[in-house]
Amino acid sequence: MNKLLVNQAFEFLSQYGNEKGHSEDTMMNRQLTVKEEIESTGTYIHTFDEISYGAKLAWRNSTKCIGRLFWETLDVFDARDVESKEEVAQHIHHHIQHATNEGKIRSTITIFPPLKFNEQQKVQIWSHQLIRYAGYLEESGEILGDPASLELTKVAQKLGWQGDRTPYDFLPVIYQWNEGPPSIIPILKEEVLEIKIDHPINKNWGPLNLKWYAVPIIADRVLEIGGLRYPAPFNGWYMETEIAARNFVDSYRYNRLRDVAKQLELDTSSTTTFWRDRALVELQHAVYASFKQAGVQIVDHYTAAQQFQTFREKEDKLQREVKGDWTWLVPPVSPSLTPIFHQGIVNEELSPNFIKQKRPLL
Amino acid sequence: MNKLLVNQAFEFLSQYGNEKGHSEDTMMNRQLTVKEEIESTGTYIHTFDEISYGAKLAWRNSTKCIGRLFWETLDVFDARDVESKEEVAQHIHHHIQHATNEGKIRSTITIFPPLKFNEQQKVQIWSHQLIRYAGYLEESGEILGDPASLELTKVAQKLGWQGDRTPYDFLPVIYQWNEGPPSIIPILKEEVLEIKIDHPINKNWGPLNLKWYAVPIIADRVLEIGGLRYPAPFNGWYMETEIAARNFVDSYRYNRLRDVAKQLELDTSSTTTFWRDRALVELQHAVYASFKQAGVQIVDHYTAAQQFQTFREKEDKLQREVKGDWTWLVPPVSPSLTPIFHQGIVNEELSPNFIKQKRPLL
Ligand code: HEM
Ligand code: HEM
Repeated sequence: MNKLLVNQAFEFLSQYGNEKGHSEDTMMNRQLTVKEEIESTGTYIHTFDEISYGAKLAWRNSTKCIGRLFWETLDVFDARDVESKEEVAQHIHHHIQHATNEGKIRSTITIFPPLKFNEQQKVQIWSHQLIRYAGYLEESGEILGDPASLELTKVAQKLGWQGDRTPYDFLPVIYQWNEGPPSIIPILKEEVLEIKIDHPINKNWGPLNLKWYAVPIIADRVLEIGGLRYPAPFNGWYMETEIAARNFVDSYRYNRLRDVAKQLELDTSSTTTFWRDRALVELQHAVYASFKQAGVQIVDHYTAAQQFQTFREKEDKLQREVKGDWTWLVPPVSPSLTPIFHQGIVNEELSPNFIKQKRPLL
Repeated sequence: MNKLLVNQAFEFLSQYGNEKGHSEDTMMNRQLTVKEEIESTGTYIHTFDEISYGAKLAWRNSTKCIGRLFWETLDVFDARDVESKEEVAQHIHHHIQHATNEGKIRSTITIFPPLKFNEQQKVQIWSHQLIRYAGYLEESGEILGDPASLELTKVAQKLGWQGDRTPYDFLPVIYQWNEGPPSIIPILKEEVLEIKIDHPINKNWGPLNLKWYAVPIIADRVLEIGGLRYPAPFNGWYMETEIAARNFVDSYRYNRLRDVAKQLELDTSSTTTFWRDRALVELQHAVYASFKQAGVQIVDHYTAAQQFQTFREKEDKLQREVKGDWTWLVPPVSPSLTPIFHQGIVNEELSPNFIKQKRPLL
């Protein structure tokens, strides 16, 4: 019998039972059932309430996430019973639609069948996010689109997908069914909410051609609960820096800071005009205001940091020490203006959690 | 015999000999002499060249320092022979004068007698920096000056010092001589170079009454070389964020961000006008430009990060892995615009180094 699995299951079940206020009897009974189940089948099956609460705990335990104040408000969809590729595609489309909700974004997770010891893995997702722009290496050596997607774009092309060769083509979702060759799920323009980025004061950003999608749905992690590992795409809403300081600005991403500075007519002749920092701030404002203008949920980094403080205080009161990865929690814009910058935090991974699953190479 | 000290001495002496290209013979002889010296006296005495190179190595090893490209250009003053409090004061004033150099700041260190086992410590410096503004708790509960100096200001007052009660009074240097009661060395207006902060474009910052001193001379560390620990104030020049993002802005320091925003007539009615980030950037520009305008050396965070990259590349070529503390090395303004943000770095303390010495309470 898999003792490790039993231990992990017991640990989760007692945390679950305690936080839900179940009686000792209920907890013990459930543990006994699970133990017998593992003894006879090698694994066990979570109740819906268990995976649902487990997913929320995984969010609460995500050391890199500044958005955890809202950990209890996660919409959980159970896709453990998928029997075909069509059903996988349905769940993916459903997730996008439910989460997007015309801009009133809902934190959502869709849970696929767990990886099982000695059994084929039903669903393995390769895509980093369900919605993601493709990236192409041009013959000139330049990159069109999102450089972060070069590898997966090639995979999609090998699988017969063809993009429109714009900077913002939707990559199909790439996944494996029953450990077979990878398949794709095309993402349709109609199902994705996108936001054109304009500046609220310095208008006329049209020529910059900046836009982004509304919902970041991370897909290449597995959700670990009580020793079981589920492929499980999840999303919250964006913090503005993710788009405006990283996706548009990192030199290995869209790398558009200088273009923005030119649009703002900043003096880019020397570093010490501080044009980079100024352009960066304007870009934050532009992304934030454009989302708001379009009625799409987004949070600014300062407010997110305040919310994170509230989360810490709430957890402290419940005598649960919040763990965190300082290097991820401090925002990449004006970090020292947030309290997170000035506080220590223990970087420790608890279970349940979201962990990386290695993607097999094609 | 103190075996640990012998080991530490040998380790330093072989690093020193190797990097200086000394012959095996020279190195072995020196090690032998030092061993005999430790056997008979319990300690040993560094040559001037040894402490001089050791101090440079300590800088090179400072994991939190972004300015290490220049580690070889450190002016070293030997104050190991101080015999009186007057001589200590002379060295302190000399350090300030030499380092300041009318704004063409020289990286400088002044090395006082080492702490010796079973002997009285000749000089123990309590001041955090040689030049530092006092901080007073007013009856109203407000703080005048630098809140970081509250404790040392009280100590200075107990010792008979009286400030002018401006936001920028120079604290005297506080130190102990021969482990006796603390003494003070008054810092004179005439010996300190200060820079009035104005904005290069948005003029008329006079009412903000912002100024800062030219040279940060850290004084409460000890320089550890080959097992010996020297009180040793050291300085480089400022990176603009230290003043403009931390000293003026941290809520537990001068806390002036909102005042700056008002001076800039930013809309502070809501967080999501991004007034904090805008004011922060303008403050960087103002501090940087004011120093430059006054002919005082300063570096902006972007250039400093580039210099740090050059340092890493140089060290890599010499097969010396640069250690670093990511959380200190990334600047507090637009960190993700610097390469440091995107790279891993091993956080490990090597010797020689600067280490904290606990200050005794009064
Ligand atoms: C509700 C709004 C949310 C906000 C504003 C938010 C914010 C963030 C931010 C800013 C990051 C850092 C991203 C980066 O720098 O690449 C992050 C990471 C993360 N968040 Fe959240 N989050 C939210 C919801 C969620 C939800 C619903 C989950 C899971 C159920 C979650 C789990 C995570 C995880 C696992 C990471 C680390 C991702 C990685 O390792 O790449 N977050 N979050
Ligand atoms: C030459 C120009 C220099 C620049 C621009 C520079 C820059 C910096 C900066 C920005 C920090 C972080 C300070 C903070 O956030 O509080 C720092 C820390 C540090 N630097 Fe440098 N530095 C310079 C010279 C030196 C020199 C000459 C030494 C020693 C010989 C040195 C040793 C250190 C040490 C030990 C720390 C950590 C201080 C602490 O723990 O509080 N630096 N430096």
